[in-house]
Amino acid sequence: MERVFVDINNLKEFTSDVFQKLGVKKEFADITADVLVSADRRGIGSHGVQRLKRYVNDIKNGRILPNNGPQILKETPVSLLVDGQAGLGQVIGYLTMEKVIEKAKKSGMCFATVKNSNHYGIAAYYSMMAIPHNFIGISLTNAAPLVMPTFGKDMVFGTNPLSIAVPTENETPFVLDMATSTVPRGKLEVYRRMGKKIPKTWATDEHGNPTDDPDRVLKNLLERKGGGLLPLGGAEEEDGSHKGYGLAVVVDILSGILSGGAYGLYVYKEKHPNVCHFFGAINPEIFIPLEELKKNMDDYIRMLKNAPKRAGKDRIYIHGEKEYEKEQEHKEKVSVLKVVYEEMLNIAKEAGCEVELKVIG
Amino acid sequence: MERVFVDINNLKEFTSDVFQKLGVKKEFADITADVLVSADRRGIGSHGVQRLKRYVNDIKNGRILPNNGPQILKETPVSLLVDGQAGLGQVIGYLTMEKVIEKAKKSGMCFATVKNSNHYGIAAYYSMMAIPHNFIGISLTNAAPLVMPTFGKDMVFGTNPLSIAVPTENETPFVLDMATSTVPRGKLEVYRRMGKKIPKTWATDEHGNPTDDPDRVLKNLLERKGGGLLPLGGAEEEDGSHKGYGLAVVVDILSGILSGGAYGLYVYKEKHPNVCHFFGAINPEIFIPLEELKKNMDDYIRMLKNAPKRAGKDRIYIHGEKEYEKEQEHKEKVSVLKVVYEEMLNIAKEAGCEVELKVIG
Repeated sequence: MERVFVDINNLKEFTSDVFQKLGVKKEFADITADVLVSADRRGIGSHGVQRLKRYVNDIKNGRILPNNGPQILKETPVSLLVDGQAGLGQVIGYLTMEKVIEKAKKSGMCFATVKNSNHYGIAAYYSMMAIPHNFIGISLTNAAPLVMPTFGKDMVFGTNPLSIAVPTENETPFVLDMATSTVPRGKLEVYRRMGKKIPKTWATDEHGNPTDDPDRVLKNLLERKGGGLLPLGGAEEEDGSHKGYGLAVVVDILSGILSGGAYGLYVYKEKHPNVCHFFGAINPEIFIPLEELKKNMDDYIRMLKNAPKRAGKDRIYIHGEKEYEKEQEHKEKVSVLKVVYEEMLNIAKEAGCEVELKVIG
Repeated sequence: MERVFVDINNLKEFTSDVFQKLGVKKEFADITADVLVSADRRGIGSHGVQRLKRYVNDIKNGRILPNNGPQILKETPVSLLVDGQAGLGQVIGYLTMEKVIEKAKKSGMCFATVKNSNHYGIAAYYSMMAIPHNFIGISLTNAAPLVMPTFGKDMVFGTNPLSIAVPTENETPFVLDMATSTVPRGKLEVYRRMGKKIPKTWATDEHGNPTDDPDRVLKNLLERKGGGLLPLGGAEEEDGSHKGYGLAVVVDILSGILSGGAYGLYVYKEKHPNVCHFFGAINPEIFIPLEELKKNMDDYIRMLKNAPKRAGKDRIYIHGEKEYEKEQEHKEKVSVLKVVYEEMLNIAKEAGCEVELKVIG
């Protein structure tokens, strides 16, 4: 599909202006724009500006109350219980993680559980906020139900991603960011667009049986006819399906249950979606000197990269490496789908946006 | 294969006596026996008394220094850095987790990273220690290299399991305990014994290609000819292989790197195996009232169990449920393989053991 290039700063200003024209205060609009454009820069277009329309709609219909920030309900030197007050997930995530890092500076570590938020974009944005502080960062979120438990037929919980970021010396920081389903829904949309069949580990038909037909799955999901995405490990216990399922439940417990928010089928059930997150920051120096951690991270990464490859493969990747390379490639400009670009122009026109989004290639 | 039943208390006393006759102090021998017999009771024979011979050998050859306990090297109100001093993994694990829980009572949470320990048995033993205190328990460990990174040909890291236990009201506690490989090695041994082929998501041949031949994999592992176990998600990125791989690396970072101990290929490389663990306990009441957590855990568990099943399945399992049912079934007696029973009698005879292990059925 056709793509167009836009300047990073122009895209950020434009996106922020769209939010501001919808009444979002500049600070919050800027944060949200930065999280979205970061996803595009890291090559994760499914979580980038292509989602702008959904956020705009959710602000218009009152699901998102975009000027609400995180409210601290309970606090200890190492913990925060936060009410997202139906604010923008990106704003709630960013401001909560900032506070988590601030507290970890004093107490060595801090964890926050957040209820009543919204879709927060890429999980890694928040875990990576710990890296410049030389902390280990953690970010989890629950999500709208799309995934079934092992032996189930219908979706009960979300793709519930988890991310952990760890600083390094000279190597690219380790940044794991993974849905606990085999793939997120966006992957099925890509395969449908290409007219490709999907692997049998991804999703099931309306009877709960693995299928290779992405169109059938996506239509069933839309019409709530049953079936959905499979946990990491696929459909069968012998392939480890119960492990992906278990990890998804852990994410729901730490974000949804521990915060007193929504979990499982309750997420996206009421007017406010009540998406819940969990954040953490650990100062490694409460255990070992930072230099030792960084040196050993580099050493481990090289051990993995230099390990013998199987036939036909010339590279072993480290988590976050592909995304880091994309980010470097997209320091100044990034491409978006032409259809997304055109949709954005329409959104802007409707909102009375003053910043022009220019195609530069 | 033929099995014999033995009394639980008899088996514990017998196992402890074997260790004591090898010079292990009673307290440590009792802890180790309890961890091993717990695995048998929970239906995880691969981690039960069938491993006695390996522990006995490692004590005899000096790999394990069984009277060494955990030494605290560094401490904050919420953290512990522990040197296992090459002690028994079970003793280091148990005593460290006790200390973690004690500190969590004061500080709301505590995490410990442990270097220079040994194989500690089932990860869930330690996470579950938090349950009677109404805390969330966490237990991770690295292990001898057996698993390859995605696109790799040879093993670089261990099956690196992770366990998390969460209290409930009336339902069985949620206890996830999973290797981050698709299966642990023991599963291949079981299939070989039965003459069965293995799924292609489990292991690779010496060229790094998925194979269905368990004998070939196990021989290659023994002779270090290449190949090994696959991460959760199998061999390909499209099935999520990089996710299992990433989780294994996270376990190695939190246990091996954060403790200043061994990771990846360094585990089991020197005379002392330098196996590393990570433990945690979180008091949920620093976030929400305990009653609310327990009530919502029960509700979520019922939501999962009552979800529609796919054709041919009449039950959705919760993590820890199968093991809990086995444990209830094995309150008084447990079965072990006849060959294991006979091996144990030989070990006992050689050690000059005074407790007789009686077959009761």
